[in-house]
Amino acid sequence: TWCWEATHARCDARLAELGLELPGPHPYPSPNRRACVRVGDIVFLSGHGTGRRAMPLGCRQFGKVGAEVSETEAYLCAKAVALTMIATLKAELGELDRVRRVIRLMGMVNGAPGFDRQFAVIDGASDLFHDLWGPEFGCHARAAVGVAELPRRAVLEIMGEFEVHPDR
Amino acid sequence: TWCWEATHARCDARLAELGLELPGPHPYPSPNRRACVRVGDIVFLSGHGTGRRAMPLGCRQFGKVGAEVSETEAYLCAKAVALTMIATLKAELGELDRVRRVIRLMGMVNGAPGFDRQFAVIDGASDLFHDLWGPEFGCHARAAVGVAELPRRAVLEIMGEFEVHPDR
Amino acid sequence: TWCWEATHARCDARLAELGLELPGPHPYPSPNRRACVRVGDIVFLSGHGTGRRAMPLGCRQFGKVGAEVSETEAYLCAKAVALTMIATLKAELGELDRVRRVIRLMGMVNGAPGFDRQFAVIDGASDLFHDLWGPEFGCHARAAVGVAELPRRAVLEIMGEFEVHPDR
Repeated sequence: TWCWEATHARCDARLAELGLELPGPHPYPSPNRRACVRVGDIVFLSGHGTGRRAMPLGCRQFGKVGAEVSETEAYLCAKAVALTMIATLKAELGELDRVRRVIRLMGMVNGAPGFDRQFAVIDGASDLFHDLWGPEFGCHARAAVGVAELPRRAVLEIMGEFEVHPDR
Repeated sequence: TWCWEATHARCDARLAELGLELPGPHPYPSPNRRACVRVGDIVFLSGHGTGRRAMPLGCRQFGKVGAEVSETEAYLCAKAVALTMIATLKAELGELDRVRRVIRLMGMVNGAPGFDRQFAVIDGASDLFHDLWGPEFGCHARAAVGVAELPRRAVLEIMGEFEVHPDR
Repeated sequence: TWCWEATHARCDARLAELGLELPGPHPYPSPNRRACVRVGDIVFLSGHGTGRRAMPLGCRQFGKVGAEVSETEAYLCAKAVALTMIATLKAELGELDRVRRVIRLMGMVNGAPGFDRQFAVIDGASDLFHDLWGPEFGCHARAAVGVAELPRRAVLEIMGEFEVHPDR
């Protein structure tokens, strides 16, 4: 049931199977930037963070991982942020099945001093993308690092690139 | 008077309208790297920081935002750094009108502990690009984060990707 | 004897001339990600860090530069990490001569507070790429910044993009 088989609405069906619902796209507060820009077959996504109103209920919006926010909570944050990235892609492309593959994620974790398990946090996003697009197209390149601070004390922020199928 | 209308020297005229002058391109101290590399229609820019001699007079070159450097000063730093990025593009492309759009910026702010308004700082660059290339092609994807330290204690550093018109 | 002349096995010969040996590709611990993803003529590499088992003997695997790790040791770490990136490219492409150029590196240094010579550390990688692919194709765009923490307290991590020759 992987969505890379060229069938209608595979990704949406897979999201439903996983019990997940996409948030609405978050409008940017400023006209100078947007959630993504597409160039050729690559969509460059903005950093998507937990500060957005799109975070589901119960999901931490700010705080340092390893101090105010647990690793488990942060993993769920990364999964929620991945859903906002998918919502961005859907808004840009019209339908999710136009995504060909996840290229790369850059995960930036707002960790407490000494927190060195950024990989375990960003896995919340990587696992979801892998579940959604499968081992061939969901498996991606990645960096996961600890930044000093994030806007509005967000728990984490993820930037990424996705490949899309050429226009038909 | 936006420069994306295919008319000669629109961008330079727009810069003049905005009362802005491009600095000369900054020569790299080391032969192993350069200010940008173009691949196909995408120009990948190096991180451009405030440590460069190209900063205008009165612009802070180093220090932590929220402690030694105010948010307003840092906003002006980001604008000055954006001008050095534009100078890099002009040196690479010959003329600025060959730029098609701003794809994405990654703004890294050297903030004091607790400083969480990176977005307000990097807006100095985003606002300028938006003013210069307009809502369609100047509006870009972006991440703005707080790093722990920057080379030579620079106030901020901005990396980015730009799309260029195909060679004629 | 630069490898960009279209001759068989130039890069491997150049590595041997430099007295360098490639480590084996490091298997990722998790199925959700991989060392690189290729899209068209660009290979997007994951962040490659010193935490990998591929680090040569005597090379520091963790610690903060400027405190536990000296700048000279960190320079050697960056060189060793560059070798793991080259090993990734070889595993992906079959032969290294399919690399056309280094596009950009993003070097993230786990520095002690106040350490502001990230450029001198990441030069360990930049110098090697320049030695290997020469002034035209080895010279690259770059950002070198100081992050707050890295996975498993790695000394540094380098992410990058490389251009490959089109498929024959």
